[in-house]
Amino acid sequence: MSDTRTETDSLGPVEVSAEAFYGAQTARAIANFPISGLKASSFLILALAMIKHAAAEANQSLGLITPEQGSAIRQAAKEIIDGQHHEHFVVDVFQAGAGVSLHMNANEVIANRAGQILGEPLGTYKKIHPNDHVNYGQSTNDVFPTAMRLATLLALEELYPVLNELAASLADKGREFKDVLKAGRTHMQDAVPITLGQEFAAYAVAIQKCHQHIARTAASLRELGLGGSAVGTGLNTHPDYRQRVIEGLGRISGFELTSTEDLRYAMQSNAVMADVSAALRSLALELIRISNDLRLLSSGPNTGFDEIHLPSLQPGSSIMPGKVNPVLAELTAMVAFQVIGNDTATALAVQAGQLELNVMMPTMAHNTLQSVAILTNALRELDHRCIRGIIANRDRCAHYAGSTIALATALNPYIGYAKAAALVKESVATGRSIVALAREKNLLTEEQIAEILDPKSMTEPHARKL
Amino acid sequence: MSDTRTETDSLGPVEVSAEAFYGAQTARAIANFPISGLKASSFLILALAMIKHAAAEANQSLGLITPEQGSAIRQAAKEIIDGQHHEHFVVDVFQAGAGVSLHMNANEVIANRAGQILGEPLGTYKKIHPNDHVNYGQSTNDVFPTAMRLATLLALEELYPVLNELAASLADKGREFKDVLKAGRTHMQDAVPITLGQEFAAYAVAIQKCHQHIARTAASLRELGLGGSAVGTGLNTHPDYRQRVIEGLGRISGFELTSTEDLRYAMQSNAVMADVSAALRSLALELIRISNDLRLLSSGPNTGFDEIHLPSLQPGSSIMPGKVNPVLAELTAMVAFQVIGNDTATALAVQAGQLELNVMMPTMAHNTLQSVAILTNALRELDHRCIRGIIANRDRCAHYAGSTIALATALNPYIGYAKAAALVKESVATGRSIVALAREKNLLTEEQIAEILDPKSMTEPHARKL
Amino acid sequence: MSDTRTETDSLGPVEVSAEAFYGAQTARAIANFPISGLKASSFLILALAMIKHAAAEANQSLGLITPEQGSAIRQAAKEIIDGQHHEHFVVDVFQAGAGVSLHMNANEVIANRAGQILGEPLGTYKKIHPNDHVNYGQSTNDVFPTAMRLATLLALEELYPVLNELAASLADKGREFKDVLKAGRTHMQDAVPITLGQEFAAYAVAIQKCHQHIARTAASLRELGLGGSAVGTGLNTHPDYRQRVIEGLGRISGFELTSTEDLRYAMQSNAVMADVSAALRSLALELIRISNDLRLLSSGPNTGFDEIHLPSLQPGSSIMPGKVNPVLAELTAMVAFQVIGNDTATALAVQAGQLELNVMMPTMAHNTLQSVAILTNALRELDHRCIRGIIANRDRCAHYAGSTIALATALNPYIGYAKAAALVKESVATGRSIVALAREKNLLTEEQIAEILDPKSMTEPHARKL
Amino acid sequence: MSDTRTETDSLGPVEVSAEAFYGAQTARAIANFPISGLKASSFLILALAMIKHAAAEANQSLGLITPEQGSAIRQAAKEIIDGQHHEHFVVDVFQAGAGVSLHMNANEVIANRAGQILGEPLGTYKKIHPNDHVNYGQSTNDVFPTAMRLATLLALEELYPVLNELAASLADKGREFKDVLKAGRTHMQDAVPITLGQEFAAYAVAIQKCHQHIARTAASLRELGLGGSAVGTGLNTHPDYRQRVIEGLGRISGFELTSTEDLRYAMQSNAVMADVSAALRSLALELIRISNDLRLLSSGPNTGFDEIHLPSLQPGSSIMPGKVNPVLAELTAMVAFQVIGNDTATALAVQAGQLELNVMMPTMAHNTLQSVAILTNALRELDHRCIRGIIANRDRCAHYAGSTIALATALNPYIGYAKAAALVKESVATGRSIVALAREKNLLTEEQIAEILDPKSMTEPHARKL
Repeated sequence: MSDTRTETDSLGPVEVSAEAFYGAQTARAIANFPISGLKASSFLILALAMIKHAAAEANQSLGLITPEQGSAIRQAAKEIIDGQHHEHFVVDVFQAGAGVSLHMNANEVIANRAGQILGEPLGTYKKIHPNDHVNYGQSTNDVFPTAMRLATLLALEELYPVLNELAASLADKGREFKDVLKAGRTHMQDAVPITLGQEFAAYAVAIQKCHQHIARTAASLRELGLGGSAVGTGLNTHPDYRQRVIEGLGRISGFELTSTEDLRYAMQSNAVMADVSAALRSLALELIRISNDLRLLSSGPNTGFDEIHLPSLQPGSSIMPGKVNPVLAELTAMVAFQVIGNDTATALAVQAGQLELNVMMPTMAHNTLQSVAILTNALRELDHRCIRGIIANRDRCAHYAGSTIALATALNPYIGYAKAAALVKESVATGRSIVALAREKNLLTEEQIAEILDPKSMTEPHARKL
Repeated sequence: MSDTRTETDSLGPVEVSAEAFYGAQTARAIANFPISGLKASSFLILALAMIKHAAAEANQSLGLITPEQGSAIRQAAKEIIDGQHHEHFVVDVFQAGAGVSLHMNANEVIANRAGQILGEPLGTYKKIHPNDHVNYGQSTNDVFPTAMRLATLLALEELYPVLNELAASLADKGREFKDVLKAGRTHMQDAVPITLGQEFAAYAVAIQKCHQHIARTAASLRELGLGGSAVGTGLNTHPDYRQRVIEGLGRISGFELTSTEDLRYAMQSNAVMADVSAALRSLALELIRISNDLRLLSSGPNTGFDEIHLPSLQPGSSIMPGKVNPVLAELTAMVAFQVIGNDTATALAVQAGQLELNVMMPTMAHNTLQSVAILTNALRELDHRCIRGIIANRDRCAHYAGSTIALATALNPYIGYAKAAALVKESVATGRSIVALAREKNLLTEEQIAEILDPKSMTEPHARKL
Repeated sequence: MSDTRTETDSLGPVEVSAEAFYGAQTARAIANFPISGLKASSFLILALAMIKHAAAEANQSLGLITPEQGSAIRQAAKEIIDGQHHEHFVVDVFQAGAGVSLHMNANEVIANRAGQILGEPLGTYKKIHPNDHVNYGQSTNDVFPTAMRLATLLALEELYPVLNELAASLADKGREFKDVLKAGRTHMQDAVPITLGQEFAAYAVAIQKCHQHIARTAASLRELGLGGSAVGTGLNTHPDYRQRVIEGLGRISGFELTSTEDLRYAMQSNAVMADVSAALRSLALELIRISNDLRLLSSGPNTGFDEIHLPSLQPGSSIMPGKVNPVLAELTAMVAFQVIGNDTATALAVQAGQLELNVMMPTMAHNTLQSVAILTNALRELDHRCIRGIIANRDRCAHYAGSTIALATALNPYIGYAKAAALVKESVATGRSIVALAREKNLLTEEQIAEILDPKSMTEPHARKL
Repeated sequence: MSDTRTETDSLGPVEVSAEAFYGAQTARAIANFPISGLKASSFLILALAMIKHAAAEANQSLGLITPEQGSAIRQAAKEIIDGQHHEHFVVDVFQAGAGVSLHMNANEVIANRAGQILGEPLGTYKKIHPNDHVNYGQSTNDVFPTAMRLATLLALEELYPVLNELAASLADKGREFKDVLKAGRTHMQDAVPITLGQEFAAYAVAIQKCHQHIARTAASLRELGLGGSAVGTGLNTHPDYRQRVIEGLGRISGFELTSTEDLRYAMQSNAVMADVSAALRSLALELIRISNDLRLLSSGPNTGFDEIHLPSLQPGSSIMPGKVNPVLAELTAMVAFQVIGNDTATALAVQAGQLELNVMMPTMAHNTLQSVAILTNALRELDHRCIRGIIANRDRCAHYAGSTIALATALNPYIGYAKAAALVKESVATGRSIVALAREKNLLTEEQIAEILDPKSMTEPHARKL
């Protein structure tokens, strides 16, 4: 009695855990790649199972595998799509080039489970062989790029509603704060008035635009090279296979998928992964900016800008009692830094293709899928636990609106830039307000002062008062 | 008699070169920023002049500047658009935040030249003042982001035809080499046959796809925040100004431009610059890959793959006589590295916005415009001096097609993966060919061998021969 | 009966798992940060425990906590150092800024375990309070930077022997292959002869140099700001604490540690983390280069350079039978890409410090410690499973040595560069060897040919034969 | 009569400007590489000239070139070292791989100028040939890496005094502000008191540490592979050449130079360039942080922190009169972003070495030398025009020191963290000060209040008052 079974591949015999659905090649990968302890994203496992399902369907319909084989393979794949057997996907994210190991892990799990369905003991492979049946007409070289693209599409479906909600929450705050007049700041210096609502509404637009750019870019992920087999020539595939498998995969996954215009291109190039990664990076860049703004606006309570209050989520310091920090804004920045770092790794992988194939795909898949996941989770928390609970400090904002030296800008059309500048200089030197100086110097009538130097009126265009 | 004139701004008097069209603030910038010696891209100068032209037109039509002022400003701007006076744009690319210095350089050059047209000596600014007239209703904060976007659009118009031609040349080679049978290589190891033409056709597709992605992404550059003035609220602008100036700018520039849906957003955020930069980065990633392939395929003559010959452009070595190197492929990689580095700088600038403004725009403008320029120039040379002259080494390619061990892949559907693997092992060990072994072992009939193991037939899908 | 207990912190009551050693603040962090599922590196947990041990010792010696408290805290910390209780460190690597959450996780685990040692139920904190006793005179702001530095030092101790062994294996191959003459290649083109041993010996030097640079750079990690407490002023610390705690920490950790020359600097700045990260990046850059070379030299078997054979570790393709890929060289490149991506994230975090503190430290810690870990694991496998088993293809190398067109370089001192270049041109055009042409044209005597055009003699300097 | 002359190289005849000191290969490079308009750094030209000088000396001493040749070559090289003839170095920074074109540009300029000294017309090369004499025993492959390292050392000599002065100015401000008590801020929230002087002193340390790390890292640039000739084997060099040329180069350049321990390593690897680039990047990271702090501390005048005033250098806005921006702090950040972008390009170039050579050296040289130059210039201006003129706003700082809620931290040792936190909560809710509440609740005696809650006393460690 033993808790391993012996399997044999072209390099010889290998011991495999007796109960494992995976087989010899996965066992070799476990031994060869004890690197990070990180396993494949469940989205990548789902995508591989969907491909195997679609391929079995297409090959069966073309008479290339038997109905019994086709049915068993599809059932096994379906179980994985339904969330079962993921624990048998054990290959480290750092593995063989091109993802051969994870791909064979999928072929083996499905072959063993399908064999089991047909009454075969694990590791037999007579009725269902991982290479000859599960992988019929396929190669890691067309399956992995397809799986990576499909997994990214699946993962993004989780991010999109979070972005929608985040933008909606920011837009809600834009409306809530639309009358909260404050000083604008450019170069971190006093600028002309604006409303807090205008600021938050703009943050909402920024998130929406990122969302749109991600979605627009990700559309290219739907162009797939499945059917190219080993080098994009379709060797060992039936001429009708390519269209059938893509059509089936579209049906199973729910995405509108197309077969690539050039199978060699789809195998050589993963530029689309760099494009999507970069779109996530742009979201990260915006998140750094917005979270920095939130941290700046909420700085205080007594030594900062103190224009807004973020919800208190946890004590902020192990030594300073009562301190409450902008933890979710900080978290967001850190997640954004990681997304940018992951993008660097992805870009390096994308440029490293050679001739018919880019073997660095596991790096792209791991980094992109991790980025989508941590963005999804972090932005959900940011929205629910931070943005929605933001409160404006209206008094402080009003104080700034009335005291910014840039109020003088409204005088430009009346007294010219040079005289207005002299006024500001005097205001800063004496501490007297722009309004007081304008009045004293009879630069404007009282009526003009009321209209032109009113901060509220400065927050939108006006025809010049003459 | 002196070769400077004295001008005065809000900080006091400044000496300015007597003949200079620029004024006090530019002179301060020369003193403050002696950093790199690099000057603004001519596309950025053109874009600034177009904006000043459109603004003068809009402001004149709204009665905010006089027809005399409007006409003189437009004439001065037009001269710059036509290529004159660029030598007066002297501010270093590393300068004041937000590009205030270059913007004032433009305001001053136009004010002085327009004043000159109206008969004023340089530095007078009575009839045409840089701030009060040239810059009426404008701010660096809405002008510079607009100029940067417009300049990028202008520069890209030079890149697009180069990309088109490069893709066309690669596609031509794809057709020329469509019968050049060779071995595919994946993981740098023998793979199944492919044609050299299939490889080059795929390179063409890669370039086209990059082109499409750049163009699609750059479309967002047409959404402009001009009219937002200081903080995106449109202070000191007429309610009709915003639409008029964008419409005029569209007419002058020839692009279909739109006013942004949110003026604050367009001022806070430069994510679109990161998007465009990233699209250029993706092109760079593909160029690294393709140029590496060209270097690999042309390696030799006697110790490499030697599948293709690149044109000889210059002696390749100061010590090794007769050596000819793939200089344009190397150049292309170096330009690509620079584009990726420039993208890093741009991304850092984009994340650094604070509140109403991102003052790091000069970094984005310099890096993005340089990237477009060097890509345009390098790819023109790559196309004309390298790609178009590539010659296939047909004998060498044919030799590889016949000798790759991966020919055995075609046997999978007939004898299964495991037996085919054993055959390959024997072939490698003995040096005997797959065909010879298949024949000897009676694995296939002669007819099958002729059909199934013919490399040419492996370069496209086939219904299984039974 | 319930499986949670209720704890209360300054923000109110929180439910905590009944058996957990952690407390309220960790429970809040679990709720606030469900981001990646990744937990702190064990090296970081060890480092925190060492600090808590050293602080308890110092504070007890200064009479600031009681001997009973000091002893219990040290015992609890010691257990963690010995590998116990790590399962109670549950905070996600993406968490509160500055690592407050993980730090409080450590304070709480130690407080509860120490309380348990003193007979208190979990969650009581009467005898041992996480803030008042475990954290006495400390702040996240001095503890976390110290822990991050110490954890990095601990992790690097695992990498160093792997680098030593890898360099030794490469040097062994350098000696083994010292007589394997081959063609050098520059620009991927035929260059003058070299030995395979010279190449491998140089790889060994490259790894050694990286090792030295990492170690030299990491030495700065030993300068610590512990004792700075909240903002680097040492508030709530005894004047003697700073030296005592560093001395104790040195004793416990086994490293030669020093107190920083400026406590504010040590809290504001984490440039040293960027330095160490960059040194790891340089190692990654070298690994990409060397692994690319290995993939190039082992390309084939029939369509590549085929100069060396790497050990076969697993079947290389799901479709191409008998294919064996350079999996560990590919893995190494992917790990290197990740290290470079992680370095980007770290650098972004390092630049984001503000005033007294950089709250982005968790990003630095996670990325740097992951990089060290995956480098350690990947290079161990690369060494053991790949480098040590490399075999030279001596015949192929010899063939290249004799056929490179760059043999003509040796003629420069005798016939000049220009004539040698003409000879090469003729050789390439006619396919005749340099030696044959030199003989035919009577450029050299037979004796000279034997001496000057002998590839072996070209692999080292020689006095000119006259 | 014509303004070109015709030269011939191994690829055929080329037209060269009649007066040019360069020759055929440079003329080819002008035609092949019209990419950026950027020319080589003068430090790189100097370094090349120094190498040619040293090589001529060594080769003459070994009898390999004649005394007449040696003398003329040395004189020509000396003129270049003295700043002459730089206008003849015309190759674009984006050029042939490995810098062959710039290297040949140097060989040709020196050959023509040396020939001229010996009475030969330009373009003759009888007495002095660019390859056979100027380049005797040399190759781009050993010359360019050496030149790049030497040029970097030369450029850094300009940066070091600037860093010294900047650190000194910051330290001066540290002393000047040592009694300016203010609130610390961590997480952008009120923290315990600190002095403005402590902050500036720490900035000085940060710059010093960067300086030290750069210098320590750059020391590895002194290990040179000159003498390796084409592939690091020293082909066509005399056995004594390697040591003689390095010794001579050390004498000419004034640096302590050594010959590498492995000539192949020094040619394969440019990791040291990545190391130096990364050390510059760390400086950039610190500069971003410090310049952000300066912008934050000087934010205002009426709507920001307003703790310090930076010198006014130029009007800050084209629309907002009287606005003065922190232009040199902004410039510094932009320069830092560029340095980080340049580092990315350099790192990409460093990983791209293949076999005997890394042909991407021109990218490393251009980016690293540009980074050193712009850092040198920007930091000189930052120091002279900004740091030295900073003035503290003592009243504002004092106000913050008294109002930060973190004063309660000093109560921890007396009343415990939990009670202190409750006190802060009450202070924030009621607007009453910590001191007032502590007094009201009789938490401390008046004497304790005076001692413990004095902000000044919080800026250094104290034995606990009991």
